[in-house]
Amino acid sequence: MENNGSKLWRLNKEEKKEEVKSGKALTIRIALSLLFGNIDSNDERQVVPMGHGDPSPFNCFRTSVAAEDAVVDTLRSATFNGYAPFYGQPPAREAIAEYISKDVPYKVSRDDVYLTLGCKHGIQIALTGLSTPGCNILLPRPTFAMYDAVAAYTGLEVRKYHLIPENGWEIDINSVEALTDNNTVAIVVINPGNPSGSVYTRQHLQKVAETARKLGLLVISDEVYEHITFGNNPFVRMGEFASIVPVLTLGSFSKRWLVPGWRLGWLVTTDPTGFLQKSQFMERVKEFISISPEPPTFIQAAVPEIIEKTEEEFFSKCINVLGQDADIIFEKLKEIPCITCPNKPEGSMFIMVKLNVSMLNDIQDDADFCLKLAKQEKVIILPGSTVGMENWIRITFALEPSILEEGLERMKAFCQRNAKAL
Amino acid sequence: MENNGSKLWRLNKEEKKEEVKSGKALTIRIALSLLFGNIDSNDERQVVPMGHGDPSPFNCFRTSVAAEDAVVDTLRSATFNGYAPFYGQPPAREAIAEYISKDVPYKVSRDDVYLTLGCKHGIQIALTGLSTPGCNILLPRPTFAMYDAVAAYTGLEVRKYHLIPENGWEIDINSVEALTDNNTVAIVVINPGNPSGSVYTRQHLQKVAETARKLGLLVISDEVYEHITFGNNPFVRMGEFASIVPVLTLGSFSKRWLVPGWRLGWLVTTDPTGFLQKSQFMERVKEFISISPEPPTFIQAAVPEIIEKTEEEFFSKCINVLGQDADIIFEKLKEIPCITCPNKPEGSMFIMVKLNVSMLNDIQDDADFCLKLAKQEKVIILPGSTVGMENWIRITFALEPSILEEGLERMKAFCQRNAKAL
Repeated sequence: MENNGSKLWRLNKEEKKEEVKSGKALTIRIALSLLFGNIDSNDERQVVPMGHGDPSPFNCFRTSVAAEDAVVDTLRSATFNGYAPFYGQPPAREAIAEYISKDVPYKVSRDDVYLTLGCKHGIQIALTGLSTPGCNILLPRPTFAMYDAVAAYTGLEVRKYHLIPENGWEIDINSVEALTDNNTVAIVVINPGNPSGSVYTRQHLQKVAETARKLGLLVISDEVYEHITFGNNPFVRMGEFASIVPVLTLGSFSKRWLVPGWRLGWLVTTDPTGFLQKSQFMERVKEFISISPEPPTFIQAAVPEIIEKTEEEFFSKCINVLGQDADIIFEKLKEIPCITCPNKPEGSMFIMVKLNVSMLNDIQDDADFCLKLAKQEKVIILPGSTVGMENWIRITFALEPSILEEGLERMKAFCQRNAKAL
Repeated sequence: MENNGSKLWRLNKEEKKEEVKSGKALTIRIALSLLFGNIDSNDERQVVPMGHGDPSPFNCFRTSVAAEDAVVDTLRSATFNGYAPFYGQPPAREAIAEYISKDVPYKVSRDDVYLTLGCKHGIQIALTGLSTPGCNILLPRPTFAMYDAVAAYTGLEVRKYHLIPENGWEIDINSVEALTDNNTVAIVVINPGNPSGSVYTRQHLQKVAETARKLGLLVISDEVYEHITFGNNPFVRMGEFASIVPVLTLGSFSKRWLVPGWRLGWLVTTDPTGFLQKSQFMERVKEFISISPEPPTFIQAAVPEIIEKTEEEFFSKCINVLGQDADIIFEKLKEIPCITCPNKPEGSMFIMVKLNVSMLNDIQDDADFCLKLAKQEKVIILPGSTVGMENWIRITFALEPSILEEGLERMKAFCQRNAKAL
């Protein structure tokens, strides 16, 4: 593949790369496949994958033994080889309802829980359910690109509200209000933040809930990084404010249990008044679920044990490493002049940083930077344009700390080598 | 639930049953939930489930040890907890390509294979890809109801061609030709037949391929019951005739390996001229796959070993039991005067039989028959109206033979008790 920077990135129709579709939306995985395709095969160093939120290859991020045992047990029992109900096995739904109820002031019931094949599947189900002609939806900028891809596919118009970097990536309430019209049906809130690494305060979430109520919006709360926090703010579920506004929560075992490949998540209505459950929207959601695949039955059957048997120590060990990683990346990036970090990450597995290309030779933009970094240093990071912010970069720090340091050293060397003479 | 027969069945909007959607399509699972809901909870006998194709609960139909071991191994390795590529892991795609290539006269390549979460997911992907305004698709009558449900959801118009019971449920070529117009894009062929139990000859499949070519139709070949044959005709893949017409094959581990709950299948283009791969249709298929979930990575990773290590003895043992079951059901049903079997099943797990309600007291139709049978005998069978043929019945015989005999005895007793006096 020719290393022609942003032209390559913009994916015009001439590009015949297998996974590049008609330019509708650039998902993170398509971007990653372009970046990995740009690696120099003669470079014998290990690739440092800081492009996506999948820590599972690293020993320090191996999933809990209890979770693994639970799945082996259900598989070996040979009693879960048959079909499961559309919305999931009742004990699995019950276990997730209890798990979520711990964090909200009322009891989520089993009937509020729909098992999904990971959060991406939850996004597909929710946005397909919302998609009616003329409607639009509010997404954050920066965003998680899968929302854009699914919205483009379903024909749902996307409007982007701002997150304010100088303010811990809080939601710009004014931009939410300015973008909303009679056809706006929902606002997506991602907390802990992907790609921002932010963790919202209770006060901020309440303000968002009140704004949504005032504007008549459903809140879709993407909590796939739930409980992955290592800063000052604890994780608060948006569902805490469901008495103010109905909330559709998307979650998953992928991140907290470090098993994105298990494809096991949930879509939960937190809806004490029962408004959502009776809505046309949920009718459409259920209809789409009925023609969609379900998670494998034996994996569903393991849910109660995965939740019950995973020890607190597993989670705290993982959070400790991630907190250490956040320290490393925040300090190391300070040593690179063309990169500015507005905030130290407090949650999730990402940091968003600003790139000053004017300090570099022959680097056009963020995409060009990432492609050349992949080529020269075998380090993969994600151009901000993929998540809606040009000349920013999203970096995953969920790596074995020594490998993270290695990747950051290579980034620094790359920037030094390509720096303009002062 | 009130036992009010076909009125209940027709699912008007007043019904508030959770899984009953806006009357668009009655899937088999919705029908089954109505039937199971009609069981008398005071009846202490075991339920005999002859309503759906899931033999996995019976000891004689336990999946192969090799398949179970393969999945345990990939899970325990902890190297497949991360994300998989959109279309599936390359070794899994390769293994399925080789597996299918054994049965067709040319080599299917890895790039022709897309992993799915079972055949239902393949149906969703294929029909979503075909759905463009004004288009229609040909389905068999009797059918597999998931096709109708997905078509209704995607807005694809359905036209039903006839299968001829007196002729081994062969496809009525005349009705295919009569139904096709300029907006007809594809014909779905299910072989071995669900619900018919038929296995098409090579000659018949070739005639279907030639007809599709003449009419300009894509062939979607549902081969989920592949190699499950125990009559005179061997299983022949439609892909054998892909030089005549491009074929999209849907398949799965669900039935041959007796693991429908593992949700692991494939969508394969058998397309020696490369026509399909370059089509707009496949563009849409790939686009939909990119926003859809993938099978769990560790299950994908087990595919090569599942195929390689499963011994022929496992398959032959399973076929032997099913053949014995087919003998039992064909003979036993002859003892029930109000039921006529046009054909002994030669493949799949089903038999379609004709019901003569005029010989019974106070039974309105097939749905009423099945609901009352569930109530009085704890035997579940599927009304033919669910698969497009009123006053027919689809019966699954894939049960432990002694349990099958018990179910048929109860059916006989039910018919005797409800028979009109001569």
